[in-house]
Amino acid sequence: MSRQHGTALGPGSPVLALDIGASSVKYAVFDDDGGIAHSGVRELVLDRQEAALEQLAGLVAGLVAGLNSARAAGARPTIRPGSVGVTAPGIVDALSGVVRHSANLGWRDFALRDELAARLGMPVAIGHDVNLAGLAEHRLGAARGARNAMVTVLGTGISSALLVDGQLLSAGGYAGEIGHARIFPIGDARARACSCGAIGCLQTVASAGGLVAEYARRTGRTVPGAEQVFAAAAAGDPEAAAALRLGIDALALALAQCAALLGPELIVLGGGMAQAGEALSAPLEAALHGLLSFHRRPRLVPAELGRWAGTFGAALLAREAASG
Amino acid sequence: MSRQHGTALGPGSPVLALDIGASSVKYAVFDDDGGIAHSGVRELVLDRQEAALEQLAGLVAGLVAGLNSARAAGARPTIRPGSVGVTAPGIVDALSGVVRHSANLGWRDFALRDELAARLGMPVAIGHDVNLAGLAEHRLGAARGARNAMVTVLGTGISSALLVDGQLLSAGGYAGEIGHARIFPIGDARARACSCGAIGCLQTVASAGGLVAEYARRTGRTVPGAEQVFAAAAAGDPEAAAALRLGIDALALALAQCAALLGPELIVLGGGMAQAGEALSAPLEAALHGLLSFHRRPRLVPAELGRWAGTFGAALLAREAASG
Repeated sequence: MSRQHGTALGPGSPVLALDIGASSVKYAVFDDDGGIAHSGVRELVLDRQEAALEQLAGLVAGLVAGLNSARAAGARPTIRPGSVGVTAPGIVDALSGVVRHSANLGWRDFALRDELAARLGMPVAIGHDVNLAGLAEHRLGAARGARNAMVTVLGTGISSALLVDGQLLSAGGYAGEIGHARIFPIGDARARACSCGAIGCLQTVASAGGLVAEYARRTGRTVPGAEQVFAAAAAGDPEAAAALRLGIDALALALAQCAALLGPELIVLGGGMAQAGEALSAPLEAALHGLLSFHRRPRLVPAELGRWAGTFGAALLAREAASG
Repeated sequence: MSRQHGTALGPGSPVLALDIGASSVKYAVFDDDGGIAHSGVRELVLDRQEAALEQLAGLVAGLVAGLNSARAAGARPTIRPGSVGVTAPGIVDALSGVVRHSANLGWRDFALRDELAARLGMPVAIGHDVNLAGLAEHRLGAARGARNAMVTVLGTGISSALLVDGQLLSAGGYAGEIGHARIFPIGDARARACSCGAIGCLQTVASAGGLVAEYARRTGRTVPGAEQVFAAAAAGDPEAAAALRLGIDALALALAQCAALLGPELIVLGGGMAQAGEALSAPLEAALHGLLSFHRRPRLVPAELGRWAGTFGAALLAREAASG
């Protein structure tokens, strides 16, 4: 069991949480201490909205049926979840409960919250996956106590949860898309086409895929992931080092821009690429601080909740939905 | 009288407002309809903190004495201001009432709110000058009704008030320093030293001073202000056009980054450089929209409250202080 299974929300109503990914859903049942009583990952193809609703409702019904059977069999403690929290990728308007657009799943203007609540007959709350991971890191993890922080998830893409004045920013679901903030000036030859349709986005060079692509451009070799680029750089491969340098400098620049705009005290690094640890964070912090003057200098710290952060965030949201 | 003197806060307590600049203070007395009953500009050198307090207290005492005399002489309506709102430049922590740092005035860790309140014997509220101009544009001006907007003041420097989810961001006074967000990548030859001590900040090329400096670099001629660069570009001077292009492209890039991070629906352009009107806003909007894909596309609109925006914002803050 990894660390996050020792984490708990604290006392409150039992809830269910779903963290929707590109090809699977993480699920967890939280008991009235806020600990995870039961969790797992289900492979689900959710790329059609109507079918996605049926599958998600079926997953929840199965979890509730399991809890009911356990209760009938005398299991203690009895857990009767009163609400469901759900993460979704893309542009998620938590306020209206609508996923405006999810490129990965092909969803558009999908009233996920209300449609799922109608099928389940219990309150549902939805939020953006990285924003909810950020909420969990803020309430339970690496950003506890910070009033101004960013939780930046570095993986296939790059996205940030932005915490300013103690509040997570939403902007109708549009906030935090740092991976799709253009980093290279107009006319810069390094500005490459991004999957989003724009050019020169941060994640074209600083995401795991960006590092792999840059290394391939330099060597003709396509490695499976960013960890191979880090390993090759550590072993003295100058092309791997150059790809890393480009990515880290771009990320430092983006974080420096965030420091000027949003004044974070703390930047939490999560996602698969953050597994590189100090090989990433040490040169990144040095480059970032080299770009600042009067600005507040954020500390860079590793995320604490791992890949279940989004699930914890969804559970926190479900607790609010149950009490609201 | 310019437009803003027709603007009013609406009914409420009479207040005083001071908008502190580098070498002068704008002041205004607001009556119980929230209109400006009396206003002016006083040249004041405020670069020593203790002396600044004396001068500001003296200015307020003079305004109050004038109102008392007018009342004694039978003037109607009688105005008895119950609180004072004050803007300050720099890193202003509105919550604690402390100016952390003001490069222009040389202030550092200056408890302006409480020191001034003690001298005046009435409630004082302070805020960042551009943030309060943004508050005024949001409540009374060009950003009325917007939940997500930026008010960007383009002048000697560049700074933005950031409105997200209906709230103005503060981050302890650090929010909105877009002019000191580095815009050029590490190693880019166009990244020049900024007055703040960093390199390649947006305002080195996109502020009024940045345009003048770039034009001087290209031609050896130093013109008085940005309006001469706009005029020369309009008259066909290719060096002026190139300086403008550099500045507008840099500003478009910075605003595109804000669109990805903060999802504004609206960007209000204010400050001296915004007087260029469509000569600035049309190419800026075209360049900005050319950098976006799925992002929310902000409309660019001119500020409505002119150079008294900060004073109106200070008055709004004073109203809150009076009722709080």
